[in-house]
Amino acid sequence: MVPHLITALSGPINELEARVLESTPAIERWFRLEWMEHTPPFYTSVDLRNAGFKLAPVATNLFPGGFNNLTPEMLPLAVQAAMAAIEKICPEAKNLLLIPEEAHSRNTFYLLSVQRLMRVFTQAGLNVRLGTLDATIKAPTQLTLHDGSELTLEPLVRSRGRLGLKDFDPCTILLNNNLSRGVPQVLAGLHQQYVLPPLHAGWATRRKSRHFQSYEEVAKKFAKLLGMDPWLINPMFAHCGEVDFTEASGLECVQTHAEALLTKIRRKYKEYGINEKPFVVVKADNGSDGQGLVTLRDAKDLDEIARRARQDGAAPVGREVIIQEGVPTYERMNDAVAEPVVYMIDRYVVGGFYRVHAERGTDENLNAPGSSFVPLAFAESNQLPRPGAKPGASAPNRFYMYGVIGRLAMLAAAYELEATDPEAEIYD
Amino acid sequence: MVPHLITALSGPINELEARVLESTPAIERWFRLEWMEHTPPFYTSVDLRNAGFKLAPVATNLFPGGFNNLTPEMLPLAVQAAMAAIEKICPEAKNLLLIPEEAHSRNTFYLLSVQRLMRVFTQAGLNVRLGTLDATIKAPTQLTLHDGSELTLEPLVRSRGRLGLKDFDPCTILLNNNLSRGVPQVLAGLHQQYVLPPLHAGWATRRKSRHFQSYEEVAKKFAKLLGMDPWLINPMFAHCGEVDFTEASGLECVQTHAEALLTKIRRKYKEYGINEKPFVVVKADNGSDGQGLVTLRDAKDLDEIARRARQDGAAPVGREVIIQEGVPTYERMNDAVAEPVVYMIDRYVVGGFYRVHAERGTDENLNAPGSSFVPLAFAESNQLPRPGAKPGASAPNRFYMYGVIGRLAMLAAAYELEATDPEAEIYD
Repeated sequence: MVPHLITALSGPINELEARVLESTPAIERWFRLEWMEHTPPFYTSVDLRNAGFKLAPVATNLFPGGFNNLTPEMLPLAVQAAMAAIEKICPEAKNLLLIPEEAHSRNTFYLLSVQRLMRVFTQAGLNVRLGTLDATIKAPTQLTLHDGSELTLEPLVRSRGRLGLKDFDPCTILLNNNLSRGVPQVLAGLHQQYVLPPLHAGWATRRKSRHFQSYEEVAKKFAKLLGMDPWLINPMFAHCGEVDFTEASGLECVQTHAEALLTKIRRKYKEYGINEKPFVVVKADNGSDGQGLVTLRDAKDLDEIARRARQDGAAPVGREVIIQEGVPTYERMNDAVAEPVVYMIDRYVVGGFYRVHAERGTDENLNAPGSSFVPLAFAESNQLPRPGAKPGASAPNRFYMYGVIGRLAMLAAAYELEATDPEAEIYD
Repeated sequence: MVPHLITALSGPINELEARVLESTPAIERWFRLEWMEHTPPFYTSVDLRNAGFKLAPVATNLFPGGFNNLTPEMLPLAVQAAMAAIEKICPEAKNLLLIPEEAHSRNTFYLLSVQRLMRVFTQAGLNVRLGTLDATIKAPTQLTLHDGSELTLEPLVRSRGRLGLKDFDPCTILLNNNLSRGVPQVLAGLHQQYVLPPLHAGWATRRKSRHFQSYEEVAKKFAKLLGMDPWLINPMFAHCGEVDFTEASGLECVQTHAEALLTKIRRKYKEYGINEKPFVVVKADNGSDGQGLVTLRDAKDLDEIARRARQDGAAPVGREVIIQEGVPTYERMNDAVAEPVVYMIDRYVVGGFYRVHAERGTDENLNAPGSSFVPLAFAESNQLPRPGAKPGASAPNRFYMYGVIGRLAMLAAAYELEATDPEAEIYD
């Protein structure tokens, strides 16, 4: 089942789908060549938005949760991808230390995702145990899941050069923790072990604007390969240094960029005959919490929005912000707004689902309380794409296109992590 | 659904299944280390037989057909494995030349398998075209499948160092042709391209006895890892040079070995309390046609069998033979005898099915006219194994065990191909 696109203008996406399908061998070869030069992130999830006239990633998560929302049918793909990943990194490995998000250790949905990851890596051939960054946990602690099964969180044991648990010395430390509160001391200087993803993939270092700069580069290369306008897959953006919403004067940079961006979008809409009112989204340049997200249809509204945000106490204070072209999502599952999320391990797409939110609008962030997850739309997708099917009518074909765009965002993250690697050797 | 085991003695297999499941991380790591030292065959299918007291491979095919019998749900696994395989061999590759079995070019079931392979490799990122060894085909020739779709067979174009088609220069030549009639001149000396599997994987060079010699080595290593008797997974065998069934005197070697093997099996049956009459199978040491297969319960019967075979004209003449411990198959699908077949691409299990033959007995070769294929039993298998399920009751668990034994046979083929490589460098 392909979600219903509630827009008259689905031509560009159907055309993109057709072109992506007919170019499969060229696209896969292009990725193959890119992965010879660039190392994919260990695992990635990418939120996409399909506006009918445009399909673009809006968030790239390098510490994905939500693995529990993938269908069981897709797990063997995850296991196979995990095998390929381990084989490259540390083939002799016996043990994997997984460090989950300590802030979510009472969230049983998150724990289901952690349990799923543990099964995938156990099946791929590793003994997996959970270590916690929560320093208040001094002894092995059982966490109970919905179905009565249990996970054991253990306190970390740090020696000079290595990190492990009691009687557990891992080759690889897998972070499922976005480090938004900074890099804890216990993770620093682990040169004898693999820490994946690397510490600079955490939100202490990462900036969305840096990611979308890399994505723009990737989208341009890909668009050249397919002979199409990169705008069809690339959300335009601008970046402002520290912005203080609590003072009206701190908003000048945002206002100027929003104005310029809205003008650029308006021009593009005109070019493609899109009869819509453009909008931009202003959000913190780091962090994955979706906090302080502001939608703007007219740069002049910013003062009023900032005033209201100050009243609500929801205004971003002293944070860098990214101003991004808003991509409406016109996909619907049972009348609720839906956005596809694509999951990857190593270079491989291993599944996906639709994030659905009945109470949110087409221009709002769906990654918010009240959202639900519908793997349904991808249930069929573990069949191969079907060349010749009508664009938009075949779930496997649509999912293949989503998988291609998801991988473009993953490739952008690979570029980004190279550019921001503090230990990179500079040869200039 | 797990096929019904119609034997009282299923304890050993259920125990093996339980041990294999609980040892998953150790087993997967062991395979990982083996693949660091040995190159897996490009693709492999392995016929297994489950006797309840014993589970063993009986045939390892390095040019597998039958990909059309895999469920569509498993194709993404095949694509992902094909991507991993290509990436290692020839990442820059644009083109793949597939050479199917020319003798089966009118067999539409076989053509469905070829079509399936073409889709897998196209989806993995290659332009795939079919070349034929049939020298009578001088121009592109359409072959029509059941569903009306078409395949195009093209004549090969050989230049000095390279093989291709008209306007098609491949990086890799993939053989789906077991070369049982010898290596054609057109395939010799292609040092500028990858020919996969290598020519010495064809039946012109391969010997079953060499394969099972390697399998014994692999089975012993694996049995040591799991602390079990290798006989539980290893069919014993002996080998005779050229045997002439047309002369009674040519059978001495077979008779002596069959006698010795039956004695060894009897001893093992006694050790395990197996209340059955042992048998051995005498077959040609090369070729995959299953021709001239003789089942023997008493070495003294050989003369009589040879006499009858001479009358039928079915007796192997002047061929090397392998005498192999017979492993009965006690699995049943709807009362018909069933044997599992496991498919692998590169090092990954990508699917499997049951070969079912209503008219054959438990000790007979099921790879014969009249057999059918039931992917049903593996339909569930694209879920992960379920630790804790009762042995024999969970299809994913049983399939995981079959996948492990299948991979042992594949590893044995890797050992075998190394040992028989005519271009191997000798360092002694």
